[in-house]
Amino acid sequence: MTEMLDRRARARGPNVPTFYNEPVHIVRGEGGWLWDADGKRYLDCYNNVPHVGHCHPRVVEAIARQAATLNTHTRYLHDGILTYIERLTATFDHDLSQVIMVCSGSEANDIALRMAQAVTGKRGFIATNATYHGTTTAVSQLSRRRPPIGGYPDHVRLVPAPTTLTPLGGSMDAQGAAFAAGIQTAIEELEANGSGFAGLMLCPIFANEGLPDLPDDFLAPTAEVVRAAGGVLICDEVQPGFGRTGRAMWSHAWMNVAPDVVTLGKPMGNGHPVAATVARPDVMAAFREAFGYFNTFGGNPVSCAAARAVLDVIEDEGLVAHAARMSPRVVADLKTLDFRAEAHIRGRGQFYAVELTRDGAPAGDLAKWLIEALKARGVLMGVIGPARNILKFRPPMPFDESHAALLMTTMEETLATCPI
Amino acid sequence: MTEMLDRRARARGPNVPTFYNEPVHIVRGEGGWLWDADGKRYLDCYNNVPHVGHCHPRVVEAIARQAATLNTHTRYLHDGILTYIERLTATFDHDLSQVIMVCSGSEANDIALRMAQAVTGKRGFIATNATYHGTTTAVSQLSRRRPPIGGYPDHVRLVPAPTTLTPLGGSMDAQGAAFAAGIQTAIEELEANGSGFAGLMLCPIFANEGLPDLPDDFLAPTAEVVRAAGGVLICDEVQPGFGRTGRAMWSHAWMNVAPDVVTLGKPMGNGHPVAATVARPDVMAAFREAFGYFNTFGGNPVSCAAARAVLDVIEDEGLVAHAARMSPRVVADLKTLDFRAEAHIRGRGQFYAVELTRDGAPAGDLAKWLIEALKARGVLMGVIGPARNILKFRPPMPFDESHAALLMTTMEETLATCPI
Repeated sequence: MTEMLDRRARARGPNVPTFYNEPVHIVRGEGGWLWDADGKRYLDCYNNVPHVGHCHPRVVEAIARQAATLNTHTRYLHDGILTYIERLTATFDHDLSQVIMVCSGSEANDIALRMAQAVTGKRGFIATNATYHGTTTAVSQLSRRRPPIGGYPDHVRLVPAPTTLTPLGGSMDAQGAAFAAGIQTAIEELEANGSGFAGLMLCPIFANEGLPDLPDDFLAPTAEVVRAAGGVLICDEVQPGFGRTGRAMWSHAWMNVAPDVVTLGKPMGNGHPVAATVARPDVMAAFREAFGYFNTFGGNPVSCAAARAVLDVIEDEGLVAHAARMSPRVVADLKTLDFRAEAHIRGRGQFYAVELTRDGAPAGDLAKWLIEALKARGVLMGVIGPARNILKFRPPMPFDESHAALLMTTMEETLATCPI
Repeated sequence: MTEMLDRRARARGPNVPTFYNEPVHIVRGEGGWLWDADGKRYLDCYNNVPHVGHCHPRVVEAIARQAATLNTHTRYLHDGILTYIERLTATFDHDLSQVIMVCSGSEANDIALRMAQAVTGKRGFIATNATYHGTTTAVSQLSRRRPPIGGYPDHVRLVPAPTTLTPLGGSMDAQGAAFAAGIQTAIEELEANGSGFAGLMLCPIFANEGLPDLPDDFLAPTAEVVRAAGGVLICDEVQPGFGRTGRAMWSHAWMNVAPDVVTLGKPMGNGHPVAATVARPDVMAAFREAFGYFNTFGGNPVSCAAARAVLDVIEDEGLVAHAARMSPRVVADLKTLDFRAEAHIRGRGQFYAVELTRDGAPAGDLAKWLIEALKARGVLMGVIGPARNILKFRPPMPFDESHAALLMTTMEETLATCPI
């Protein structure tokens, strides 16, 4: 382990975080399980990228077969990308019928921002103050973890994110209007400083913000404010998409909002680097007119085969309905546990959050202790939220009753030993 | 074909170029060959991405095996990424020993730009006025094909690119100093307008600029100017890297220049979406300090397995030496052909250029006709250069005498029918 960490530091440089105080060294995956180099098995409650399960044989076979047949680019014609886009866009409403395929959610979001600029002729963007949309220079400016060289740009405004415990506007009922009011103010600031308002980018379930409980009509006033200002509404479905939330293939459908642009990533190829920007034809045309865009790897036949296999498995294994079935059971089970703190338990399909507080204050220490202790007992999980006090639990979609039973037993045993 | 083009327009939107007036519909590849849906075979003289040959069995097998075993991210430990980085960096000099793995050359270049900003604390970049470094918002600002929304940014300066036919400074001997003088002027402009000079990004063989003939010491004055100004020198090896030029694994070695950062892409995984930014430890540390960077797919075990197989094949099949052997033969053969115009023939390993002029003026019409006519006769090739008058010919690296013989015969037959 020490030798491996030394090699890692030499090869990758400083400040490259691992998960866990003593990182795991994973060598094999299958379905909902991971194994480390010592043969220890872990229940994977963290990874959403292997959406249909680690190393799903149908995805592996699709990749292997296509890689042995042809892998080129999209300036030649190929049926793979067309069939995939037709299959994918059939799952969207709101005339979201055209697609650019790329390699990462960051690339997809980078395009989405330029689509908003192309449609509006303006430069300014709004996102929440507790989000993360990706790693390119342009997209990383939508989060403020560290200041860019030259300082924070004028054309970005970050607005207060919705929460469950201290709702904007003072109450859950007022939160939707208060969030929209924050956006309205930001729009006015962008118009005043000369940037103008191009678009709002958000994750419809506010996953990085901590998966707050929100009513289904929460985003209605926001959509109205964006439309009235002539801006573009971009829904980042990189985390909640592909049926994760159980109620619908895309989380914006749950949130009753009609985006102009939707971005997809992580689960799209079950780990193969593929992502996409989906747009209405008028939005796509504006982008294609304003920017010449070609992505060498984007939409290659192997990426499309992987992505298509993922759609096949989601459909054939009924994974969206499965998420809807599992979600209330897991939430109910979690509510039976004694977290030795206030535990605010939320679920949106197979995406769960346990917000831990003591006297209303974030209990980040407990969350951190739990993650480490669960790992020691063979369960992998993460934390989210600005105060890092929210357990993030987002397993491969086939997570079922037997996995849930093991999880609950392990959590119960672990919590029983909690020294905090 | 018409139906497929209609589907393509519906799925992908307008202004998504194909190659050729009537695009090819490729369904299978093997080694140096591609086949279309009608079973017609093409000699591939265009694609550098399938570096070790289309569907090389060792790369396909490495992908298939690892995809069936594990595909996660680099916040868990995995030997694949460490072994790969160790193997890769062993091929570099100048203490270029640390790597960030990503999914595309664009992502790699986007990081490289921020590395330069992190090292210098300044924002400004210089590139040539006939180049292309990728598609992210930040990287696409280094080319001026179409203006960004809000206009061209102040922090980018594009300098005249070197050429063979009308060298900067009036002569081939003067061109190196003249190019460097252009950079010096741009540095002064960036310092004067408040951006400051962060770095220069260039392809050491100026591939997109038309692969000009340049002496080995061409970049020496440029490197000196960049160093004297405290800037970072970024070599984009996305096209010339991995031995393409025959003389060395990396083209900056040929050009006798010591970059601070090198970026890799296209050929790295033989078509699998993988790319990398390579840097000195001090540069990496500055970046890692200034920016939190994590790429979900970057450096995953499957990408590393694909990339490692490519290195294995390059080594085991002696492809760098092969490129060095083939290059003068192909250049000599090309020089025997009657191009019905002035043909300026250049080769850097298995990267060839035929610049076509009439009375010194670019003969773009002839280049276009040739590309189409060659395609009809089963040879795929491209064009480059600001005037689109330079045949670009950059086949999979195993391109050998038998391929070359077929190419020459086909070119001869094609040129004999040339109506221009």
